Amino acid sequence: MQRFLNDPDDIVDETVAGFVRAHSDLVRLDPENARVVVSQFAPKEGRVGIVTGGGSGHEPAFIGYTGKNMVDAVAVGELFSSPTAKSFQDAIKAADGGAGVAVLYGNYAGDNMNVKMAAKKAKKDGIEVATVVANDDVCSAPADEREKRRGVAGEILMWKIGGAKAATGASLEEVIAAAQKAIDNCRSVGVGLGPCTLPAVGHPNFQIEPGKMEVGIGHHGEPGTRVEDLKTANEVADDMTEIVLDDHNLPEGTEVAVLISGLGATPINELYVLYDRVAAQIEARGLKVYKALVGNYFTSLEMVGASLTIMALDDELKPLLDAETACPGF
Amino acid sequence: MQRFLNDPDDIVDETVAGFVRAHSDLVRLDPENARVVVSQFAPKEGRVGIVTGGGSGHEPAFIGYTGKNMVDAVAVGELFSSPTAKSFQDAIKAADGGAGVAVLYGNYAGDNMNVKMAAKKAKKDGIEVATVVANDDVCSAPADEREKRRGVAGEILMWKIGGAKAATGASLEEVIAAAQKAIDNCRSVGVGLGPCTLPAVGHPNFQIEPGKMEVGIGHHGEPGTRVEDLKTANEVADDMTEIVLDDHNLPEGTEVAVLISGLGATPINELYVLYDRVAAQIEARGLKVYKALVGNYFTSLEMVGASLTIMALDDELKPLLDAETACPGF
Repeated sequence: MQRFLNDPDDIVDETVAGFVRAHSDLVRLDPENARVVVSQFAPKEGRVGIVTGGGSGHEPAFIGYTGKNMVDAVAVGELFSSPTAKSFQDAIKAADGGAGVAVLYGNYAGDNMNVKMAAKKAKKDGIEVATVVANDDVCSAPADEREKRRGVAGEILMWKIGGAKAATGASLEEVIAAAQKAIDNCRSVGVGLGPCTLPAVGHPNFQIEPGKMEVGIGHHGEPGTRVEDLKTANEVADDMTEIVLDDHNLPEGTEVAVLISGLGATPINELYVLYDRVAAQIEARGLKVYKALVGNYFTSLEMVGASLTIMALDDELKPLLDAETACPGF
Repeated sequence: MQRFLNDPDDIVDETVAGFVRAHSDLVRLDPENARVVVSQFAPKEGRVGIVTGGGSGHEPAFIGYTGKNMVDAVAVGELFSSPTAKSFQDAIKAADGGAGVAVLYGNYAGDNMNVKMAAKKAKKDGIEVATVVANDDVCSAPADEREKRRGVAGEILMWKIGGAKAATGASLEEVIAAAQKAIDNCRSVGVGLGPCTLPAVGHPNFQIEPGKMEVGIGHHGEPGTRVEDLKTANEVADDMTEIVLDDHNLPEGTEVAVLISGLGATPINELYVLYDRVAAQIEARGLKVYKALVGNYFTSLEMVGASLTIMALDDELKPLLDAETACPGF
């Protein structure tokens, strides 16, 4: 894989600089912390602030979801690494409009630790902070240990719901409840067909042999639940839908949102090929697709593959999902 | 490159099926031609219809730009191949709201031939048709033979301007003039770092050796103007900006729109690294970035690389560029 690269050590700073420059109508850099991207609409006086953060290399996640009625501030980490506690703390400060801050982030050891430290310090500064930890990745732990599961592309839907709820003027408790419901209602699975390389490392930190695929792979190449022969797109779509829906166990008639994200190097047309089959399988189970998102929403550098997220909807979540949003990634 | 694939012969049908299913709020399939995607808002009674078309494999182009105040109907070709004259004709029919149809397409032999045939037949059916041929790709022919240049990502800005102009109730002549100005004001260049493979062929139809890059490469791997050692991202950005702006020759103070599109497999963070440098170079020349678009807007399957498009703006184009649009790709 050849790439557009200067010094590998500068890639995150350069990415953030280009991002903020390109989308200055929606986002800005925190004047005190170059690893914090802030919405131009933040802080929202008297509204709950929404914060997230995570490693770089997943663009448009995380920074791309900063904007209007979405995430107010993002803590930016190195490639595939957690942001610092200080960056989370500064993001909380930047998002604080006086009604508390909801930190909605993914279940990774570094993020957990740093968010906890940041929340503690923010509380000392008089900012009310509450958190939701995303754990939508079905294959990363069994159903009865859901608290061990990682957060993946379902986080985008959690931010969408949380941001929309905050925009209604809801309390911190209500925003947290909506975001928690959003991620509780999400299940995701990833399938990897090819690895990615951290530029500073120079070789992939995991392998997928030609002719094979890895089902349940994580966003940083974390091992999946099985490596098997590469199947047809329809068979893969069937497997992904089955993994997600068997874990989900939704009553017939449930309306769902479906998000298929490419992992970086998979052509967009293939995502639509997958979607067509996934949607057919969802409908065959008596469920109804209310909204679909197909594209590169949560990537892993140039990993080849895709993730499927299905979120069960209800009368609270549907209007929040439909609410107006303006951010670069959505 | 491993991929999500059923029978290679079905890939376009499956892509279109998945696309229409995912975005049924914005688009639908023409009931008479499964290779024509139509906006849910078309035909617009008393408004000029906007039609385009081209080969598949460039998603979200072309189908992704179908929607509200954008393209009304798209003729869909096989991978990297022109749609048929019949599909262009059916697209014209679907887009016709009684005020004429503007076909805004790229300068490729097959498209030229098929659009001409389609326009002739549509005129026989009583539909007024006029065309604009995009030729923004600087490296595909010298400046004094601009009519030979290919159309690339500048087409997206042409559709945006044409669609917005049509929405104002402008005449066919006025829509054509605006779209022609849009593409006349665009210059683009592509740089390839890695090839792509047509699934039915199974191997790349062109090569880029490791350590090399191809400057001026076309959207189907058409040869560029030079193959050279892979440079740093900043050097590539400098070269791209120079190629585009030297050809453009814009007066100081000109406001521009900048579009950086990944070609398929390039990670999105690298596009922002390029953008940061490109924008700095544009500003160093005394120009001003009015709007920036960075992402996978016009791809070539899993080609590695990026394209840069710069469009000069004026008081007519700016509000049209800013006008409300709803389509899956934008």
